[in-house]
Formats: sequence, structure tokens, C-alpha cells
Amino acid sequence: MNSIQIVFARQQRGDNWRKVEDAVVVEEPLEIRVNGRAFSATMRTPQGEDADRFLALGLLLSEGVIESFDDVVRVEVRARCRDIDAELCNVANVILLEEPAVSGDKWRRSLISNSSCGLCGHASVEALSSRVSQLSGSTLNVQLLRSLPALMRELQTIWTQTGGLHAAAIFGSSGKLITCFEDIGRHNATDKAIGFCLQNGLLFEEELTLLVSGRASFEIVQKALRARIGTVAAVSAASNLAVELARKNGLNLVGFLRERGMTVYSTVGEGRGL
Amino acid sequence: MNSIQIVFARQQRGDNWRKVEDAVVVEEPLEIRVNGRAFSATMRTPQGEDADRFLALGLLLSEGVIESFDDVVRVEVRARCRDIDAELCNVANVILLEEPAVSGDKWRRSLISNSSCGLCGHASVEALSSRVSQLSGSTLNVQLLRSLPALMRELQTIWTQTGGLHAAAIFGSSGKLITCFEDIGRHNATDKAIGFCLQNGLLFEEELTLLVSGRASFEIVQKALRARIGTVAAVSAASNLAVELARKNGLNLVGFLRERGMTVYSTVGEGRGL
Repeated sequence: MNSIQIVFARQQRGDNWRKVEDAVVVEEPLEIRVNGRAFSATMRTPQGEDADRFLALGLLLSEGVIESFDDVVRVEVRARCRDIDAELCNVANVILLEEPAVSGDKWRRSLISNSSCGLCGHASVEALSSRVSQLSGSTLNVQLLRSLPALMRELQTIWTQTGGLHAAAIFGSSGKLITCFEDIGRHNATDKAIGFCLQNGLLFEEELTLLVSGRASFEIVQKALRARIGTVAAVSAASNLAVELARKNGLNLVGFLRERGMTVYSTVGEGRGL
Repeated sequence: MNSIQIVFARQQRGDNWRKVEDAVVVEEPLEIRVNGRAFSATMRTPQGEDADRFLALGLLLSEGVIESFDDVVRVEVRARCRDIDAELCNVANVILLEEPAVSGDKWRRSLISNSSCGLCGHASVEALSSRVSQLSGSTLNVQLLRSLPALMRELQTIWTQTGGLHAAAIFGSSGKLITCFEDIGRHNATDKAIGFCLQNGLLFEEELTLLVSGRASFEIVQKALRARIGTVAAVSAASNLAVELARKNGLNLVGFLRERGMTVYSTVGEGRGL
């Protein structure tokens, strides 16, 4: 899997120095292609070829390039560099049934700037909201939510060893863990988790909860909306656009989620236990 | 400045709920153009028009589009949406003396994939190292380093209010603070700080230290190398590629920097106090 590398380092605690073999998180570039054409490149933490497949699928769903797994013929992944065929190393090539209308950076820019108001946060919310259907509103289960960070922490094995990366997990309605991924990029961790659910036919269920170890930004909420996940919970803060986007589309948004409490920024009904 | 927005939320502590007016960090898109052509778009925290100018300058330096402030004629910034001229809102247009060879996403991809080994971390290190000159090696002042996180924390005013964003600060050789910026994106915070120094003729001094509140990744070290900053210190972890890139180019790299200690991943000499 190669998610961790051991490097020699010198550690200071108080006035004492010692040489240590320190575990650091691995980052490697991954190029995502659509029907052979470059779509995007990201620095990700390798977690095996399946994780790259999920990352690519999750990203394309988030960006609106695919709507469901039915749009995908296959994902060709080459996660390791080899001397032969070097052109294909660290590449995830998603073969779609049909050629997408636009691709890569052009698509991203059209997403955030396609509005009469030009390029601004409010316009981004409007533009995205016009492209997703409103969620029907899942109940926020407060008591259950509080138990989730501890469940995810048990699975943050790379983080435990390196202290250096994000996690994203998806839980079912009863708090059952469906999947958890780690990555040096928090968007990547979320894309991996969403891609896993997409490939396994578990997505588009509003009862799902996406839990992220870091912040809830516009893009994290965007990913949840595209995946029709009803609740986003973040261990850290939420941004203004995340709040605006969640409220506009009937998504539950929780920040600063701890065992002892949370801040609810957006909820559809009154929620259980509120 | 509009870096913070107040939203209504419900906060739970233990079993008690209360309605609160909560300060959340603002994110707004910014499009960076080079001579009028779209180069990149990022979600950033607005800190005034100057900060957008610095962000654009820092990014273009990091990406190798400019080598110094002499390459820049001016930066046109329109940080607010207005009904008229909406096309120009949230845009930083950097006017260069000469047209750059390549632009935008194409440049990024060429940077990380321009190697016979294809797209891999090691190739990224090689490719970048071939484009920057080796640092001559600045002395790591351990005692001084330990005092920096506290200095930066005093300036993390948005973080204090929202708990939701990254900071990057640049210090002089005596530990004097030169500049500090915050942003929801950690790359943006670093770009703002580097851009500030670039515009003010303070860059390209190996005695400088770049301190980031989060992780030290490949891209953070890349930014420091392009700016010829001799030391990068991170409050959190460093990645394997950050370590490799720093060692190869004579840059001091420190992770987990605290008042009581640190982990030194790369240092040129033995350093003062090691």
C-alpha cells in the first residue's frame, strides 16, 4: 500500500535530542483521465489501486462529469511506476460510455463562474444548486452523530502513525460504518469514500452521513450533494459557503462534532434530540 | 475585509442546547488571470484587495510563471462583486512584461509529469529540483524556531474567532515577524505571505523562515524553494516528498514545531543548538 514511509529525523523534547526513525505520510501525484484525456492531477496518499479507482470515481461524480456508476464502463488504474509503460504510472483513466461535454479545468471554472453575477461565492451556490436536486431532508440523529468521531478515529491508522493526514468516513442510518479513507488531501479522502460507495451501489441514500476529520468547506458540501448524502459532519469548522449551500439544498450540516457536543449549522426538521 | 460572517446556529454542550450567533470563516472564489487569460481558480478567504494581489503573485512565483517582481507590470484586482462589470469581480489579473510560455493547468501538469519516469513523486522532486537552484544552506536556529508558533498564534485573529482556517507567516533571521496571513486554503495562506514579501522586495533571502499552521507537503516546500526561503517549519507533520525535496535542495525542514520541541527532517549543517 505504501501509505507510510520511514525517514530518519532528529527529535527534540525539551532540551534533549534523539535520532528517530519517523513514520511520515506518503504523497504521490495521481493523474485522472477521462476517456484518455487529462482531466485533473492531484497529490494523493496511495492506498492501493482500488483507492485510486474510488478517488477518480468520487471526483468525477463531484464535478458533475458522471451522474451514476452506469455512466462508467471501467476505470483503468496504474498505481505504481514501472520502467516500461511509464506513461501510464499513477494514472486513473475512467472510461465513460459517452464523451463528456467539457473536461478538466474548463469544467471547474464553468461550475463556479456560470452565473450572471460573475465569480462570487453566492453565484457558486446558485450555480451548483441549479444542478442538483433538492434533498428531501433526512432526520439529524444527534445522539448517533456524537458516537461517530470515535469510530472513525479507530480507523485512522495512517494518521495514528504519522499525525499527518485527513480522514473521511461514510456511515449508514444506524451509525454503521460503511467506509473510511485517509489522504494527505482532505478532498481526496472524501472522493475515495464517495467513490467506494458509488462503485458498490451504496450511494444516493439521504440517510448516509459523511464525516470529515477537518473542515467543511463549499467543496465538501458540494461532494455530499452530488452524492445525495443527507448529512455532513465535520470535526472542525464550517465555512460560510458550506452553510449557505447546505441550507439551500436541505442538507444537515454539523461542525465541531465531538463526543460532548456539536454546532448545528443547517438542519431540515428539528431533528431527533435537538 | 469580510473574512468572517456571523450565522445563526444551535450549539450542544453535554445535554444542553442553545442558539448562538456563530462566527464562520468566509470563502469566496478567486480567479487568477495572466495577461487576461484564466490561469487558475481557488476558493480563498478574502482579506482585502492587497491580499488577493499577494495571493496571485505568490502563486505565479511558486508555479514558475514569474521569477521576480521585475516580471510583473501590475496586478489588477477586483475583489468585490458589483452589478456592473460583473465579469471582473473576484479576479486578480497579473499583467506580465512577456507572455508566459504555457499557462494554467497545462503548466501544472507539465511541472509534475515532465520526466522520463512518468508521473511519480520521485519524478516530481527531480523535475522541480532541476528548475530551482540549490540553496546555499542557512543555519537552523532551534531556540529561535521554538518561539515562532506563539508569535504566529497572536496574529491568527480569524482562526481565534472561527476555529476554521490555516495560517502562514514569514520571519526574518532574528525571529522578527515580516508577515502573516490566514486562509481557508493552506496553499493560499502561504501564497499570500510569499506574495507580500515579493512585492515588498523582501524575498529571496535564505535566512527567512516560513511557518505554516498545518502540514508541510511537497507544494509548501516547492513554494519556499521558488522563493529561496531557507527554512520551512510546520506545526503539523511533513510528507515524504516534502522531506525528499527539502533534503535534495538544502532546505531546512522542521515538523511538529512546538514551544517544547520539534522534529527536524532536513538540515544543512548541524544547526545551532542541535
